[in-house]
Formats: sequence, structure tokens, C-alpha cells
Amino acid sequence: MLKELLGPDIQDLIREKDYSALKHGITEWEAPEIADLLVSLPESDQPILFRLLPRTIAAQVFAYLPSEEQEHLLQSLTTENTRVLLSELAPDDRTELFGELPAQVTQQLLSLLPPKELKEARQLLGYPEESVGRLMTPEYVAIRPEWTIGKALEHLRKHGKDAETVNLVYVVDDKGKLIDDIRLRKLILADPSEAVATVMDHHFVALSAHDDREFAAKQMQKYDRVALPVTDSDGVLLGIVTVDDMLDVVEEEATEDIQKMAAVEALDEPYMNTSFLHMIKKRAGWLSLLFLGETLTAAAMGYFEGEIERAVVLAMFIPLIISSGGNSGSQAASLVIRAMALEEIRLSDWWRVMRREIFSGLTLGIILGAIAMLQVLLWPNRDERYGEHFFLVGLTVSFSLVGVVLWGTLTGSMLPFILRRLGFDPAVSSAPFVATLVDVTGLIIYFTMALFILGGTLL
Amino acid sequence: MLKELLGPDIQDLIREKDYSALKHGITEWEAPEIADLLVSLPESDQPILFRLLPRTIAAQVFAYLPSEEQEHLLQSLTTENTRVLLSELAPDDRTELFGELPAQVTQQLLSLLPPKELKEARQLLGYPEESVGRLMTPEYVAIRPEWTIGKALEHLRKHGKDAETVNLVYVVDDKGKLIDDIRLRKLILADPSEAVATVMDHHFVALSAHDDREFAAKQMQKYDRVALPVTDSDGVLLGIVTVDDMLDVVEEEATEDIQKMAAVEALDEPYMNTSFLHMIKKRAGWLSLLFLGETLTAAAMGYFEGEIERAVVLAMFIPLIISSGGNSGSQAASLVIRAMALEEIRLSDWWRVMRREIFSGLTLGIILGAIAMLQVLLWPNRDERYGEHFFLVGLTVSFSLVGVVLWGTLTGSMLPFILRRLGFDPAVSSAPFVATLVDVTGLIIYFTMALFILGGTLL
Repeated sequence: MLKELLGPDIQDLIREKDYSALKHGITEWEAPEIADLLVSLPESDQPILFRLLPRTIAAQVFAYLPSEEQEHLLQSLTTENTRVLLSELAPDDRTELFGELPAQVTQQLLSLLPPKELKEARQLLGYPEESVGRLMTPEYVAIRPEWTIGKALEHLRKHGKDAETVNLVYVVDDKGKLIDDIRLRKLILADPSEAVATVMDHHFVALSAHDDREFAAKQMQKYDRVALPVTDSDGVLLGIVTVDDMLDVVEEEATEDIQKMAAVEALDEPYMNTSFLHMIKKRAGWLSLLFLGETLTAAAMGYFEGEIERAVVLAMFIPLIISSGGNSGSQAASLVIRAMALEEIRLSDWWRVMRREIFSGLTLGIILGAIAMLQVLLWPNRDERYGEHFFLVGLTVSFSLVGVVLWGTLTGSMLPFILRRLGFDPAVSSAPFVATLVDVTGLIIYFTMALFILGGTLL
Repeated sequence: MLKELLGPDIQDLIREKDYSALKHGITEWEAPEIADLLVSLPESDQPILFRLLPRTIAAQVFAYLPSEEQEHLLQSLTTENTRVLLSELAPDDRTELFGELPAQVTQQLLSLLPPKELKEARQLLGYPEESVGRLMTPEYVAIRPEWTIGKALEHLRKHGKDAETVNLVYVVDDKGKLIDDIRLRKLILADPSEAVATVMDHHFVALSAHDDREFAAKQMQKYDRVALPVTDSDGVLLGIVTVDDMLDVVEEEATEDIQKMAAVEALDEPYMNTSFLHMIKKRAGWLSLLFLGETLTAAAMGYFEGEIERAVVLAMFIPLIISSGGNSGSQAASLVIRAMALEEIRLSDWWRVMRREIFSGLTLGIILGAIAMLQVLLWPNRDERYGEHFFLVGLTVSFSLVGVVLWGTLTGSMLPFILRRLGFDPAVSSAPFVATLVDVTGLIIYFTMALFILGGTLL
């Protein structure tokens, strides 16, 4: 809203080179708002505005920018400006930036860091992508159990400025091992002359730097914490991850699942920022694979060519029948995949799910079968459209629908279990994947049913 | 992990009625872990364990339980125990409980509340479902600008115990109007003898109680806040919403979208807790609607019955062609729907998206068309399988695929825009919905192409 109103004004000020008015106007804003404004400006104006920002604000704004804009801005900065910017960035934002830039650019940027930050950056970049290590910041405040609470608060006053959150304070022993976390309010509410040890309960939840970021989000949800400490395998405190990063994680993981469920490889980037070639690559692979799977339907149809020749009316219902199987299968698959992602369903629940879905599939199949039968029977010129054996044709379609919907529901609900059991991501048993599987078998069910019911009359 | 190891032990202790060992063992745990353990116990043992918990812990554990277990436990409690439990619950957890219980039970529980809490609960329940008002807690700490920072910290020490988060402190004027938010660390780091007003910057982001909870999550992501204040239309501070609730919101909204995209109405409850009838209701409606839409394919096929009779080979490729249209359509639809939900794409971007998707659809169609042509040409006994005009048949299939995939991609990407423009949720333009639309038009494209290419030879 703000940027839509002020964007043109800001552009005017840039054109008029009225930098002092610009500088004055902009510094009253919050960093995310300045970032929004910057993105909305023409590319050539972005560096002008950016260079006007005070260095701490500039770093904050930079952290909020999409990676494309970050890369573009970096190109326009002098080496010295880049060095300053990098030193002002929070370590976790720095890791994210390095992780997203081309390797060559990252190497150049790393060379601008002072030794301490370089070591830190290399260490953070060493953790696997999507791991907790990539998200953590070493800017936490740690206190010792033998200190008085007064001394601990004094320490916080001195060193708390850079810490990402001082809501939770961490207690470490002389080897740096994490032994407790204490809510800041507990410290504030306690007697300052007592030792820190007196308010400790030795209850804490910690993550390992190699843990998956999805696990971290689950732990934060479970324990309702705004930050969690991260330790190495010896329990030594390495850093913290904060909940604001987790909101993005939960959203990104859901996006990946939605894309996989539609048979698209995870894009990693926003739709609009994904290049055309990249987009085709992410979609063509699965689409071709599904296509190859679907050629089996042509084989199945070839097998029943004689039946179609004798009763062309059968061909009319093919799209109807296979799509009903596909639709019911994708319903079941999506429900089960999402429930698995939310850990509502475990592998061991497969039998309970199967029992439920057998009944669901049967009920849904009977509903669709009944609609189909009614439609055939109530069609005004049914003899003309479906031939003299319209009743038997209707019966064939109805019974096939029950079979196909039941089969689709079962396949859709069980495939995620099988995939997970085999170590794959259940989200790739996407709706189209299930639909393809069900298409082939659906045709076989349909024609077998036709041979059974129409044998002797039409066939 | 913990509960799997100890569950049986705990059950033994309950059977042996060794309540003191039980009480001692359990109170060392964190509330979410006790909740997990409780859920894993047989239903009859749950109330026994629950009643052993100290009252504050009991309320915390209760808040972590799924609503089914909450209802079950409430039935086993005496009126007095229920009264104590309700008074210990945080107001936002209380609102959630009331919102999920049957209306009759809620009325009974409301009658147990003291007048002040009753008024509060009624007010919170008055906000629309999925609104910020339902999530907010009135347990915040507010200070006044004219106080000294020392007095403000003293106030926090006294009243901060119940507050959900004292990470952010709110400054209100004499009418209760919110005028600033201050990070606790800023107060701690400042000189205690100065006035609160000296550290104020009058920058704050606030929500309205009627805002949608999704908007609240977006604001928190944008501004990286762990809590946001909620005001009424006059700017008077009503309460706060905290980020831990937002993690659930982001997850629930993604779940709803995934379910809608698979043509299932949002379940509102975990898969396993949804009753059979409820599940059928959520699935049968869309499935029947899609089925009715799909009967149009039978009509389309009926129209081309003559062509199929003359060239049965055409029928063989029907599933292949319509499913390719459906798959490419569901890819495009899912990408666009998710990008819209994340606000990466706005309504006004429709033309940019359409341009991209025309090229994507064309490229993907050409890839599939080429695969199809190769397959027909390289098939060992191609004359036998596809007839003497195998080359023309292959050409028909290839060109149809280009048309159908292009059309599917376009439909899938534009339908979400049309739906949103008309005020509907784009997530309901689910993959199966797009597939059904594309099936009918795909058949028409295929047979028209066949008449064009095969006219004079096969047709």
C-alpha cells in the first residue's frame, strides 16, 4: 500500500537527485517496507536508494530482499561497500546469501570477510542444505551457572545487542556444553543476588546442527519455543535457530509438497523468478514419465480392440470411467500424503488407513455408479444413444465405476505408504502418478466387466 | 521416543496404583511430552494420570491435547476440577477449546467461569472463526510513556508472570490506545532513570481483531516479530497474538489448500479423527460434480461415434491424449495457485503468466508429441498395430498432443485468475477440476485433428 502510493514520488526524488529529502523520507520506515519499495523501483534506481541507507538499516533491508535483487545490488556496490554490508549482515542471513549465489560469486565475497567471520561462514556453509546448521546464528547469549543473576543480567546488557533473541538465555558449563535454557523473564523476576544455578531446572530441548529443518519446525511447534539451541554431537552449544525462520520453513516445505503432488519438481524459487528453461526442466521430466506410463493404456486398449469394434458404445464411457478412478485416487493420495507430512499418520497405520479407504472407496463408487445408472435409464432417447441393450450397458458402466473408484481409492491411499517404506518421499506419489496407474488398471476392469455382463448380447 | 519406552512402565504404575512414584516420575517432564504420553495411554488410564498433575502443569498439558482427548478428559472431571482447569488455561487456549467443543458443552463450561473470565471468553468467541480475535490472548504487559524505565521493569516483574511473552512490551496512552511497542531488551539495555518515552520510536505494526489469521501470519513473517498487538477500530489495545500460534496457522492453511486442490473439502480435523460419514461428505460432493462434468466426454464421444467406428485405432489413444492434457493442466494450476497463496503473483500479473504458460505449454506439448511420434515410428510391428496409415496416425496423435498440452497448460494457469477475479478461492480450481475441463475439449481437439489429417484415408 505504502509503496504503491509513494513509489512514484520516490522515483521523482531520485530523478531530481534530491537525495537529502529521499534520505530523510526513507529512514522513518521499517526495513521490510523499504525492501518492498526497493523491489518495486526500476532496476537502475535500486542501487541509488540502497546506497543512501545507513549501514545497519542497509544490511537489514538487504536481508529482506529476494536473492535476484540481492545479486543485482551486489554487482553495483564497490568492494568496500560490499565488505561493510557483509560485516553488518546477521550470520544466518549471510549463510543464506552465500548458499543462493553462484559458487564463484560466493568465493569472491568470502574473500572479503575478516578471518573470524570467514571461519564462521565456512563452517555454516559446511552443513547440508535444508539442515538446521544452515539456519542457525551464532549470535546467542550464554551465561554460566555459577554467576549471580545480577552478573548474568549485566552480561546480557553488554552482549545482548547482537543476539538474535534474548528471550531465552543459555547456560553452558566450562567446556561450552549446553546445560540449560532459561527464559529471560525468569531471570528478571528472580532475586539478582542468587546464583544462576538456583533458577535452573536442567530441562531443555536442543537440536543438532545436522537435523533437518523440518524437524526443527516440528520441535518448535511442539514445545512452543521462539528459539531453540543447536549443539554438536558432544552437546557443545553452536548457535540458535529462531522461530521467524521456521515460518518460512513451514511455508516452503508445504510449497515443495504441493509442487511434487502436481508432478512438478520443487522449484526452489518463486514462480515469477524461475527462468523459462528451468521451469521446463522441472515440468518436462515428470510429464514425459507420466506420458510413457500412459502409453500402457494404448497397449491395454489395443488388447480390447476387438470388443470396441463390436460395441463402439463402450468407447464412449472410457474417459468417464478412467477419470473417476483418477479423481478418487488423487483425493485419497492427497489426504494421506498430507497427513503423513503432519505426522498424523505413521507407517504402522497402513492397515487402519486401508480399512477406512476400502469402505470409503466402496461408498464413493456406489454413489457414482448410481448416478451413472440413473443417467442411462432417464436419458430421453436412451435406445438411440446407448442401443437396445441400454440397461446392460448402464449396468456395465455402473459396476465398473464401483470397481474403478474402489481401486483408485485403494491405490491412492496405499501408494504413499509403499513409497515411504521404500525410502522415497510420499509426496511424489502425486495425483497424476496415481491417476496414470489407475488408468491402465481401470481399462482392464471396465472391459472385463463388459465381457462378463455384455457377453452373449453385445459382445 | 520417551513415551514409547516409558508408556508401558507408566501403565504398570497405574495398575499397581503406585501414585506417588507416578507423580514423582511425571512432573520432571515437559508439558508437551506429558501430553504425548497421555494420548498414548488407554482411554481409561488417561484421567488417572491427568488428575495426578499439579494444577498449572495440568492446564499446560491440557492445552497440548487434541480436541478429542480434551473432550474425553472433561467428561471424567468433577465440576470443581473443571472449574480449576478452566481458570488455569490461557485465554487463547480456552477460546480454542470452546470453539471446538459441541455448543452444548461449551455453554456448560462457560457457566463455570467467574464473571470476568466469562465476559472475556464471550468476547473472544464473538470474533469470526479464523480471525485474529480467536487467536489472541489478553495476557500482555502494557506500560505508560511517562513512567521511568525502572518503574516499567518493576511493573514487568510484578505482572509479567501471566503474560504470554514479555519479549515485546506495549506502550499505551491514558485511553488504552496503543502508541508503541518496545523490545524488552531495549528496556533492559537502557538507563533505568530515563522515561519510557525516551526509548520510543512510535513505529509499530498492529493487527485488527477482525483481520484474517492468514494475514496475521504474513505480517509476522514480513516484520519478523514473535508477537503482534491486536487493536480495535479505535486503536485500543485488546491483546496480542504470538508466533507459535502462527506456525500452526501456516501449516493448517497449507493443508486446506492441498485438500482443496485434490477436490476434497477442507477436513478441519486430522485424517484419523475424521468420522467415516464426515469423510464421505467431504469427498462425495466434488467427486459427483466432477463425474457429472465428465459425462460431457461421453456426449463428445457420442458425437464422434462414426469416426471411431471407421477407425477403431483412434480410440486406443484417447486415454493417452486426455490424460496428458490433464497432467499438464494440473501442473500449471498447482504452480499458479500456490504462487497466488504466497502472494508471489497478483491478479494483475495474469498477462505475464499467460505469456509464460503459452510458451511452456507449446514446449511441453512438442516434447510429448515428439515422444509419441518416435514411439509409433519405432514400434517393431507398427503396420499390424497401427494399420497401414501408421505415419498419419502418429501425426494425428502428435499434433493433438501439442494442442491438448498447450490448451491444458493455458486452462490450468488461467482458471485460478478467473476464479479469484470472481471472488472464489483459486485453490478449488483443483487439478481434477482442470483435468475434467480439459478432457472434453481435448477430445474435440483430437477428433478434429483426426478429421483433418486422416480425412480421405482412414476417415
